[in-house]
Amino acid sequence: MISGERFSVVYRLVGDEKEAYRKARDICLEQTVEFPEELIPSGLIQDEIVGRIENFLPISEHIYEANVSYAIELTANEFTQLLNVIFGNISIKPGYRVERLEMPNRLLSQYPGPRYGRDGLREYLGVKDRPLLFTALKPLGLNPKQFADMAYKCALGGIDIIKDDHGLTDQVFAPFNERVYRCVEAVEKANRETGLRCIYVPNITAPMDKILARAKTAKEMGAKGLVVSPAIVGLDAMRVLANNDEIALPIFSHPAFQGSYVIAKNNGISHFALFGQITRLAGADAIIYPNFGGRFAFSREECEAIVMGTGVEMGHIKSIFPSPGGGISLDRIEELLKVYGKDVIFLVGGGLFKQGNDLIESCRYFNQMINKF
Amino acid sequence: MISGERFSVVYRLVGDEKEAYRKARDICLEQTVEFPEELIPSGLIQDEIVGRIENFLPISEHIYEANVSYAIELTANEFTQLLNVIFGNISIKPGYRVERLEMPNRLLSQYPGPRYGRDGLREYLGVKDRPLLFTALKPLGLNPKQFADMAYKCALGGIDIIKDDHGLTDQVFAPFNERVYRCVEAVEKANRETGLRCIYVPNITAPMDKILARAKTAKEMGAKGLVVSPAIVGLDAMRVLANNDEIALPIFSHPAFQGSYVIAKNNGISHFALFGQITRLAGADAIIYPNFGGRFAFSREECEAIVMGTGVEMGHIKSIFPSPGGGISLDRIEELLKVYGKDVIFLVGGGLFKQGNDLIESCRYFNQMINKF
Repeated sequence: MISGERFSVVYRLVGDEKEAYRKARDICLEQTVEFPEELIPSGLIQDEIVGRIENFLPISEHIYEANVSYAIELTANEFTQLLNVIFGNISIKPGYRVERLEMPNRLLSQYPGPRYGRDGLREYLGVKDRPLLFTALKPLGLNPKQFADMAYKCALGGIDIIKDDHGLTDQVFAPFNERVYRCVEAVEKANRETGLRCIYVPNITAPMDKILARAKTAKEMGAKGLVVSPAIVGLDAMRVLANNDEIALPIFSHPAFQGSYVIAKNNGISHFALFGQITRLAGADAIIYPNFGGRFAFSREECEAIVMGTGVEMGHIKSIFPSPGGGISLDRIEELLKVYGKDVIFLVGGGLFKQGNDLIESCRYFNQMINKF
Repeated sequence: MISGERFSVVYRLVGDEKEAYRKARDICLEQTVEFPEELIPSGLIQDEIVGRIENFLPISEHIYEANVSYAIELTANEFTQLLNVIFGNISIKPGYRVERLEMPNRLLSQYPGPRYGRDGLREYLGVKDRPLLFTALKPLGLNPKQFADMAYKCALGGIDIIKDDHGLTDQVFAPFNERVYRCVEAVEKANRETGLRCIYVPNITAPMDKILARAKTAKEMGAKGLVVSPAIVGLDAMRVLANNDEIALPIFSHPAFQGSYVIAKNNGISHFALFGQITRLAGADAIIYPNFGGRFAFSREECEAIVMGTGVEMGHIKSIFPSPGGGISLDRIEELLKVYGKDVIFLVGGGLFKQGNDLIESCRYFNQMINKF
């Protein structure tokens, strides 16, 4: 019943060597049997079910890394239970952080992962070798006609991807169906004029009993991608959406409600593992996150770790796009191109509006900045 | 379109007065319009959509509390969007923490909340005025017959509620259907012998596309309650399960994968708001959390805050049971009764096994301890 194949989670542990090792041993029990060590039945449970410390290394003063392996059968082929084995009970303890995952093909093969990934999304959008331009319809409180007008202008100005602000759901002042209908229409009109392939991606972060219907409605109305906040709907809901062959749209993951997992240095999940590995496994084609130096507090190193996580080798699971946002102003594009290179989707929302009163011109300027450097 | 009715979130902010006030103002924008302040259209958006600071108070040195109100229409009657307004983008910033929610009846009325609550669960179990006895089937790796034998003994010993360990899902060594079938049968057999009303509650934390089916299967097989880890499946999935009239079983919320929200002092959501208010709104009838002085790191004050959150006035939303667990040994029951009083469900798992080799006797001893003091 147990194949012997295991996957590993590398945890960063705080403490002196003895304390950190105690924590590593604690993980082995807490994430599996949750049982007094001295009473664990010998045989299968002790040998295969309990987590196993494969490696234990000092990293810096009072910081250790432990590689703990688990039998892949513990996850029961369920993404939810995989999350639980990685960080279920341990999430409740200070001084334990998930650094990275090491998953064999036998585990990865249970998950299709992103449908498009970097190459697929480039082909889908017809953009070969430059960064992609991304913006958001805002502010909350406008009506569908106003959002559609904004989408039209952004599409005319050469934006590749236009998304709903993540707080737009189905409010009475901009109901989902009318908003999607009008924005799709506006972007298609602009595309006919420009000959470009701009896409509109509505936010379908919604109650569990409505999210699939909302995604299907969006698809039927001609939306060409979906925004989902996985910490709000559950990471597994993103997996279900991404893997649904009837929907089959690119998924843009938004970090709302997810920050607490990465913000404490000595608890949670690393930027690399959460925004890279785990989100890829859940099927996102692009991961939106707050860029360094913007309104949020991620450091440049943390952003670079996200980029690495979006591209690190994971068997058949495709590489995905990092999409920094959260207060990027256009005068930073040159600097950011040096950091991110070409495989990036720049999400500029408020920054476009700050650029001036003519939204089309601001979008064109964004375009020029991307193509200039 | 805007009723003028608002709900409030009280945030705990770190900084000197100027910095904390800046943070409060930041929340007003970040959680709503996400738009440059100077460009916010006047009228409806500036007056009603942007969050409003209702109160701003010093709490201690470099700690302030801001009461920020939002138009209830921002939430679009969606629990997911309510979560986003409360703590979406702000989750990504250090120095902001949700302390408590103040929700008017018009907002609360959108949510049925717990089906049973404290009184309903007491009636359901036929236990009038003592703490409830709760245990978990473990360790992972046993087979369904072994779990059923354990459940039988616990039921004979007078346990009120027997749950799956939260890591038991549908593993090949204890498949869900067989496990539920056998455990229900075992507990019913014990009940016929004792005349008691012990219930078995399987863990249905499962992929989004399986969780409802698993809950229905459990109900059909005779399970009398459900364990769900809301951070793994999404808090909204718990709401859907709790509100489903076909399922109609008590819900026991497990904190796996949820710890990062409470563990950092200067980010996240307070124990009171997360384990009390939010989980009640999502429909849990009891909230499992790690007791102070056990394997985890919650303080006594944090546990007391959870208890307050489970019972604080929330319109028609029922009070629910706090269920401390995570390393309670039976010799602490006397002390814990003084802390928790009678309205509590003591979850003792490993502690029962540590008590001795005769599980029935250990359960009886647990019972005696509860009734003795």
